Amino acid sequence: MRCHRCRAPANVEIRRSRTAYCARCYPDWFRFQVQERIDHERMFRRDQRVLVAVSGGKDSLALWHTLVKLGYRADGMYIRLGIADYSRRSQQKSEAFAEKHGQVLHQVDLEGDYGFGVPDLLDTRSGKPCAACGTVKRYHFNKVAADLGYDVVATGHNLDDEAATLFGNVMHWNTDYLGRQGSVLPSTHAKLVRKVKPLYRLAERETAAYAIIERIDYILEECPMARGAKSLAYKDMLNALEEEQPGAKYRFLVGFLKEGRAAVRTGGFDQASDLRECTRCGQPTTGELCAYCRMADRGRAKAAARAARYGPRPAPAEDD
Amino acid sequence: MRCHRCRAPANVEIRRSRTAYCARCYPDWFRFQVQERIDHERMFRRDQRVLVAVSGGKDSLALWHTLVKLGYRADGMYIRLGIADYSRRSQQKSEAFAEKHGQVLHQVDLEGDYGFGVPDLLDTRSGKPCAACGTVKRYHFNKVAADLGYDVVATGHNLDDEAATLFGNVMHWNTDYLGRQGSVLPSTHAKLVRKVKPLYRLAERETAAYAIIERIDYILEECPMARGAKSLAYKDMLNALEEEQPGAKYRFLVGFLKEGRAAVRTGGFDQASDLRECTRCGQPTTGELCAYCRMADRGRAKAAARAARYGPRPAPAEDD
Repeated sequence: MRCHRCRAPANVEIRRSRTAYCARCYPDWFRFQVQERIDHERMFRRDQRVLVAVSGGKDSLALWHTLVKLGYRADGMYIRLGIADYSRRSQQKSEAFAEKHGQVLHQVDLEGDYGFGVPDLLDTRSGKPCAACGTVKRYHFNKVAADLGYDVVATGHNLDDEAATLFGNVMHWNTDYLGRQGSVLPSTHAKLVRKVKPLYRLAERETAAYAIIERIDYILEECPMARGAKSLAYKDMLNALEEEQPGAKYRFLVGFLKEGRAAVRTGGFDQASDLRECTRCGQPTTGELCAYCRMADRGRAKAAARAARYGPRPAPAEDD
Repeated sequence: MRCHRCRAPANVEIRRSRTAYCARCYPDWFRFQVQERIDHERMFRRDQRVLVAVSGGKDSLALWHTLVKLGYRADGMYIRLGIADYSRRSQQKSEAFAEKHGQVLHQVDLEGDYGFGVPDLLDTRSGKPCAACGTVKRYHFNKVAADLGYDVVATGHNLDDEAATLFGNVMHWNTDYLGRQGSVLPSTHAKLVRKVKPLYRLAERETAAYAIIERIDYILEECPMARGAKSLAYKDMLNALEEEQPGAKYRFLVGFLKEGRAAVRTGGFDQASDLRECTRCGQPTTGELCAYCRMADRGRAKAAARAARYGPRPAPAEDD
């Protein structure tokens, strides 16, 4: 195959659109796709301040890199989740990227500042902290963005992430979640910052290709706590389908956003009017104490019990 | 494992409900499941006449066998689709079953009576006749049932079939089809007979186990025209998910029928009020000429062209 733009031998194939690009033209194609999404869905403007949720992985660093190259005012933010070696290495990758590109990286230290880590948040049923970890991230990215006056939080969710989430919600018919899944989550409260996913139409292998070609040094391994997570099984399944029907993943997600979502009636509350402020932290919530504060209490109790038994430093949570 | 009922060594495991049965108790469990569905969803009563859509495969023969054993007035109907050896063998299995159990088997001969076969109905895009074959079956089962005064048409669709159809409709977000998928399709016109799927909560391997234990002689091979069909890819995918999460298929389908379907708004016409009678055949349709009559015209033209080239008898359509 040859590059769709310059006819040189191609390096990256985009099977769903039957095109391919060479390593010189590919980054421009990638950034054009991101720019097009930002503009088309009015995610943010050039005069607004963007906070990029950075994990040290390929997607978030590719997003940050792209936004900087496109000339946006995009700072990064990293949360030290306390997942032993994995957290240490991903923090180092995030800091190195910020330094190399002369960008600001905000940090929150979960254990140091809040007294617990993600390994203290294991779900009793699944044995995994993934759902709780999602709450931790949403809370702190939003809080820092609101406190420091950012207009929008941008996350690196790609097509594979979003399709897998949709797949899980469809397999369990979580109609409430289905109605809320999207690429732009508008602000419905003064302290709830707008959330956007500029990469949501780009496949995981496409963000990986971008990161490799742009020589972005990212953490290769998956989070050790996510091993065996359902979302990974869903990704495998969708990849198998994609092999048989190139573009299936894209059509599934984009078809949902265009047709399915509008057709799904969601129950639940009216977010905008039912929100109040958490009596402890002041963040928006529908209850007395917000979900994060309740979870953090349980996490701190677990961390304290562990410290009493094994000493103040938690043992590494990884099993490799 | 031991039989859930008599504690003898078990032969058939029902993973989603973590039970198992021996070969003696299993058929009773299977028939109880079918009876329970018929009653719970008021599919039909004992004083009504049921027409079973028979293909010669395990599902339709297992359904017919079950209904006869449960004491229902259930006759069979077989359509000679003209798929060479496959049709010949499945017709022979259907006739043998009817004879062995002393039941009535109606037949429609597509080539003899209508001048075309399913191999004349290849879709130009997919290269397969599966969608058209579905129209042929729906049309003739309904027509014979209406003409002969049956109260209901029962098909052998199992959990795997229904989950795969749902999966395909979800992957493409066919919201119209989604809103209409169900285990009971009520009659909305005097000439449209009620359709029911009494096996829709039983997995393919469960109907196969029933057929084997009850010594039902069915056609083992899949239809040669369906090779490579998308529905088979969807089945593989759902089976992979089922391996990881036993019961996933059942929860996906039943969750949809309980939660998802009600949440999906369907566009489209109001079937009951928009139906008129086809100007040629008199069957219910929304247009001037019904979809079947239009398709049959194309099929006959294809069959005539083929006969002109190769002589009156069509060459076998199988590739093995």
